[in-house]
Amino acid sequence: MSIRIGIYGYGNLGRGVESAICQNPDMTLAAVFTRRDPASVSLATADVPVVSASDVEKYVGKIDVMIICGGSATDLPIQTPYLAKYFPVIDSFDTHAKIPDHFSNVDAAAKEGKHTAMISVGWDPGMFSLSRFYASAILPDGEDYTFWGKGVSQGHSDAIRRIDGVLDAKQYTVPVQEALNAVRSGSAPKLTTRQKHTRECFVVAKPGADLKRIENEIKTMPNYFADYDTTVHFISMEELKRDHSEIPHGGFVIRTGRTGKNGDHRHVIEYSLKLDSNPEFTSSVLIAYARAVFRLQNEGNFGCKTVFDIPPVYLSSKPLSEIIKNLL
Amino acid sequence: MSIRIGIYGYGNLGRGVESAICQNPDMTLAAVFTRRDPASVSLATADVPVVSASDVEKYVGKIDVMIICGGSATDLPIQTPYLAKYFPVIDSFDTHAKIPDHFSNVDAAAKEGKHTAMISVGWDPGMFSLSRFYASAILPDGEDYTFWGKGVSQGHSDAIRRIDGVLDAKQYTVPVQEALNAVRSGSAPKLTTRQKHTRECFVVAKPGADLKRIENEIKTMPNYFADYDTTVHFISMEELKRDHSEIPHGGFVIRTGRTGKNGDHRHVIEYSLKLDSNPEFTSSVLIAYARAVFRLQNEGNFGCKTVFDIPPVYLSSKPLSEIIKNLL
Repeated sequence: MSIRIGIYGYGNLGRGVESAICQNPDMTLAAVFTRRDPASVSLATADVPVVSASDVEKYVGKIDVMIICGGSATDLPIQTPYLAKYFPVIDSFDTHAKIPDHFSNVDAAAKEGKHTAMISVGWDPGMFSLSRFYASAILPDGEDYTFWGKGVSQGHSDAIRRIDGVLDAKQYTVPVQEALNAVRSGSAPKLTTRQKHTRECFVVAKPGADLKRIENEIKTMPNYFADYDTTVHFISMEELKRDHSEIPHGGFVIRTGRTGKNGDHRHVIEYSLKLDSNPEFTSSVLIAYARAVFRLQNEGNFGCKTVFDIPPVYLSSKPLSEIIKNLL
Repeated sequence: MSIRIGIYGYGNLGRGVESAICQNPDMTLAAVFTRRDPASVSLATADVPVVSASDVEKYVGKIDVMIICGGSATDLPIQTPYLAKYFPVIDSFDTHAKIPDHFSNVDAAAKEGKHTAMISVGWDPGMFSLSRFYASAILPDGEDYTFWGKGVSQGHSDAIRRIDGVLDAKQYTVPVQEALNAVRSGSAPKLTTRQKHTRECFVVAKPGADLKRIENEIKTMPNYFADYDTTVHFISMEELKRDHSEIPHGGFVIRTGRTGKNGDHRHVIEYSLKLDSNPEFTSSVLIAYARAVFRLQNEGNFGCKTVFDIPPVYLSSKPLSEIIKNLL
């Protein structure tokens, strides 16, 4: 019996989930829900209904796990609590500071609807969170570092696009190699924001725009760029499309710590990702945890969960005995 | 209320556990059990009884989790099933090929005694197994690589010491940098044993011993060295003690995989460890999972468990809300 997956929102992430389902034979795509006109959406998978988001409640009983693929800023805070009343759900909510509030809202809705819900599943939050957690549980006397990149930050790219005179832009977050080396040495350095990452921007300006002003507006933008060493490259639309159309990302979670008498022995735990496609990798994590949501729902384990709650074995379609034999 | 830990076997690993307990304020060392004369064993911790292993059954009710620190070859296959009848237990059994048998034996004993038991907890098996598991669950279309080192292999060092004319020896397993680079590139290479690791041996020979013969016996030893490029250095006992008295280790778990249409997008997941002290790090993992054993025992969740069964949150002494706020 296949796990029937619903996709709610069909952007980059939704398409990634659709693609990931093909790699997991115990799952099928049951329906895609969209706020657009369903007739305007064509899927990569044959014979799957595209349904108006306003009709989603009609699908109760036809979806085992709803994967919610909206944005964290305005979509998920509304969508996940709403849908958790009707379906087992999972999302990739990634506004770190607002996770506790989102958790409470989703937990209440999921318990009311008697459903399992999972939030903040992806790579950060998600696999990076797990790596930080395991490493700090093992080495209580130590320090954590997270570096992101090299990769595209959608939020920073959007911020540049809002500047007057900018037609399009792509922003890469780049970890500073010297900072990474210092952390890996176990010397437990204190690093400022500027020392950890640089920001590299590729900008297409409108013909005749004041490039000096645009560059200055980017580099001095509070929160986004002012605290970083930022490089701005003006390029043509053709170059942007040719060289910067992919959405790679990745990063490093490092914990250094000490054990033994006087903390004489140092240890370095490092987890890193190098991803050609941020949304496709996030989707792959979502699909694995959707399997866990399905199982917890069947066990009657309702309410909001995070990656910290899930026994690893729940992610796999393989039997435990085979996992023990091949991977332990 | 503190978790009362028993240490069964007081070698490098037992001493590491003793040291790790000091870093975890919710735990206390209740007793150390030894097959030696207890009067001959002095602990680093004050006011803790050293007890003869033959008296262990008298400690039922006084130990919350017994951490079994024997060797995998002959000790643990006997000790863990025996002790699981009387106590919640955890071990670091690391003979990969025999794990399924050990699991069955411990599972039966633990269920008979109504105890939680965990086996094969450390870094490999242990954290490396978890890394292999998570990565393969997320990227079903991909390939796994595990590299060990640079680090001391106790088994290989022992094998050299058994050669006639050898006084002492230390063997380092070294991953081949070119192989690591090839794997990280995502090219999914097929690698032979020889291509993945080299072996470096530091040997103290008896005065007048035939060094050529010793070197040849090492390099041609089946299973241990014959399949590797092996380097042998003859050094003095002083040099061995000065430069090779530590027990460092580490390694790399890498999964490369593909997602998207035609598998166009490649991803690399890497987990690595660089450890100054193999036994102290293994002990630190054991202590974190001992907390999980304690909790599962209190829940009445009996039988044999592995790292795949344990919800991450069970490893930490911190409340879930704090973990979500700080690490998710």
